[in-house]
Amino acid sequence: MVSRQAARLLADTPAIAEAHFRAEAEPYDARLRPDGYLNLGTAENRLLWDLLDERLASLAAADPMTEATARYAPLHGTGVLRERVAGLLSATCRTPLDADDLVVISGATGALDAIASVLCDPGEAIVVPAPYYGAFDTDLGGRSGARILPAPLDPADGFRLTAEAVERALKQAAAEGITVRAVALSSPSNPVGEVHGPEVLAAVLRVARDHDVDVISDEIYAHAVFGPHAFTSAADPAVNPHWAARTHVVWGFAKDFGLPGLKTGVLHTRDPEVLAAARAVAYFAPVSTATQHTLAGLLADPVWVASFLAAGRRRLGDSYGHLVALLDAHGIPYAPAEAGFSVWLDLRRWLPGTGFDAERRLWRGLFETAKVSILPGGAFRSPEPGWFRLCHTVAAPLVAEAVRRIAAHLEGEHGTRPLDDPSNGRHP
Amino acid sequence: MVSRQAARLLADTPAIAEAHFRAEAEPYDARLRPDGYLNLGTAENRLLWDLLDERLASLAAADPMTEATARYAPLHGTGVLRERVAGLLSATCRTPLDADDLVVISGATGALDAIASVLCDPGEAIVVPAPYYGAFDTDLGGRSGARILPAPLDPADGFRLTAEAVERALKQAAAEGITVRAVALSSPSNPVGEVHGPEVLAAVLRVARDHDVDVISDEIYAHAVFGPHAFTSAADPAVNPHWAARTHVVWGFAKDFGLPGLKTGVLHTRDPEVLAAARAVAYFAPVSTATQHTLAGLLADPVWVASFLAAGRRRLGDSYGHLVALLDAHGIPYAPAEAGFSVWLDLRRWLPGTGFDAERRLWRGLFETAKVSILPGGAFRSPEPGWFRLCHTVAAPLVAEAVRRIAAHLEGEHGTRPLDDPSNGRHP
Repeated sequence: MVSRQAARLLADTPAIAEAHFRAEAEPYDARLRPDGYLNLGTAENRLLWDLLDERLASLAAADPMTEATARYAPLHGTGVLRERVAGLLSATCRTPLDADDLVVISGATGALDAIASVLCDPGEAIVVPAPYYGAFDTDLGGRSGARILPAPLDPADGFRLTAEAVERALKQAAAEGITVRAVALSSPSNPVGEVHGPEVLAAVLRVARDHDVDVISDEIYAHAVFGPHAFTSAADPAVNPHWAARTHVVWGFAKDFGLPGLKTGVLHTRDPEVLAAARAVAYFAPVSTATQHTLAGLLADPVWVASFLAAGRRRLGDSYGHLVALLDAHGIPYAPAEAGFSVWLDLRRWLPGTGFDAERRLWRGLFETAKVSILPGGAFRSPEPGWFRLCHTVAAPLVAEAVRRIAAHLEGEHGTRPLDDPSNGRHP
Repeated sequence: MVSRQAARLLADTPAIAEAHFRAEAEPYDARLRPDGYLNLGTAENRLLWDLLDERLASLAAADPMTEATARYAPLHGTGVLRERVAGLLSATCRTPLDADDLVVISGATGALDAIASVLCDPGEAIVVPAPYYGAFDTDLGGRSGARILPAPLDPADGFRLTAEAVERALKQAAAEGITVRAVALSSPSNPVGEVHGPEVLAAVLRVARDHDVDVISDEIYAHAVFGPHAFTSAADPAVNPHWAARTHVVWGFAKDFGLPGLKTGVLHTRDPEVLAAARAVAYFAPVSTATQHTLAGLLADPVWVASFLAAGRRRLGDSYGHLVALLDAHGIPYAPAEAGFSVWLDLRRWLPGTGFDAERRLWRGLFETAKVSILPGGAFRSPEPGWFRLCHTVAAPLVAEAVRRIAAHLEGEHGTRPLDDPSNGRHP
């Protein structure tokens, strides 16, 4: 018999990981396995490796692991990596970040677990605007025992973040006698890909302040912005003049640098007690010094970093443009995105029934029959069924094949509703 | 205000880490800083790097990180690393280990946290023979909330492990109404450096079975054995015919491979539910795939591994021999060791008073005045004051300088008790 904590974790294994590994085991290949799976369920950016490959190889040759690298280092991150991350994020957040306020930890998952475990006792709650990154349930609640309370956003408004939705959830929790310790956001948002503007961020921070709750801003897609609006961090003094000490920012190398396997996340906090406690949690999930050495090397040259991130943004924008042109051509509607790796598809009209059961059935059909792995909105605590997250950051021919299969599957299921009927489209 | 878990962790930061970083900041150098600190407090093996350096460099050149390496991998460890660790440890444990029964996680700390969190609810207990590796309190209890109950071993018997001591602690816990979920051991032992023989291991496993508690065997020093007795794993069927499913083995690359910064530990368990739950915990503390790739490369050639480990054992034995010759020459007694990086010094007669306060004062004098960092027995929950752990796995001249300073300090403090009076020595 295992502990209560273990039983909770076992009951709560993220479905995302499972679909990922199944799809990866038999991947589509135009020549070798044309009936293989197309994995567009995982938010991996496969468009960057050629930009990293040579740089990593030359770093490894010029600056290999030394005895000093292999030794014990501060378990909340080496000084050099924290200095360089602070340099990068100071520009991103438009405010000087102190390297001593950063905790390097095993992935953004580790950073989210750390801040949730530091802020919350079991049973206390974190409000999260929904739909949200589905693994938040595990990342924020799995070890801390915190409850995640969705703050539903409005489908009619494209699920845009509003301070009102956050405030409504906080008030409802208060009415139910639930102690809320934080509001957590993906910013830019995942799955929708919204770049939260300064006004809405300022309003959300004001609401958090009014209700005396901390803010956790997961900014792991901060540099993955390809739309017209610039990214604004929750740590930016322009939107956060009064709540900076209670605002904790999460970032990592998985998305912006396309290195998810390296499992390197950071937490930034200006609250000294939270910082000390987060360092104590990081003791349990430190990052290999060899990997920290590699990442510090990547960040050593700001000119290379700037050109790499700019190229990444261009490629993301091209990939998004390619996808939505295909979706438009097939009459598949979606919420327009400005950031991130995914598009939030609106497949409501093809649901074989009502409710999340119908969504699950459509998802299963797409996965088993069309062999396309995209994730159903239920996995993101979507306020309504029928939405799916499709990640487009793979080679363009795979995206094209996936959209072709999805369209064919939808047409097959509902032959009477032609896919190209423009009156059905929510978005052009 | 932080959570109760965070407050517990903050109250409980291991003193070992603090002394380490302070001593490392101003290290002794015969020419450049002759009055610098000598850090013999940290169980790092500094005797192996020249054996690793070239091999790591040639691996990095021949088999660099690829796009596949940088991607998501199973969060309980890549298949190839688990296969190779299983191969290595199958020989060590003299029983075939299944790679699927291994969980790779951020350091032995992560592995200990995982198994403790899986087995124990907060307030439940783990019995640990004392003296024990001081960070067990944090590693096993910090996040799980488990209580650590020391099972005191007998100083008169050189703190050798006995099943009776374990059983006494289990019975006392039962009498006090405490639920014990496991017995945890360092094997070989740390700080004493005992290689536990088959008989005592079998007896401890029988006691665990009689009391229906799991066994956690931390075998991170399994290959660091230089004495006459061969290492026996708690997973070895010869000593564990009936309790294998309830015996969980921890290992890692920090000690045997001298790569503590790489923070790569493993947990082996044959209990399917414990395994599934440990994988779920590993989700929060996975190891960088780049580092797993490096370590899998290190293990790829069994001939190299065998010769590396054999060379490491020879160097350990030489280092130990050099240290104890110096201790003998200065009349400083100690418990003889057969494994590990440390010697357990008996400084009882130099205590400036009685009790652990006196031990703390002697420790502070050694650290502040003699500028030698060794760790006081209190940090290892020693059953009696006056014992200190000295790690000798650094360059021989540093060990010589440290013993010289320690002897001078002891003599200065207690000039009336000549250091070379053999009647004072517990051990020759």
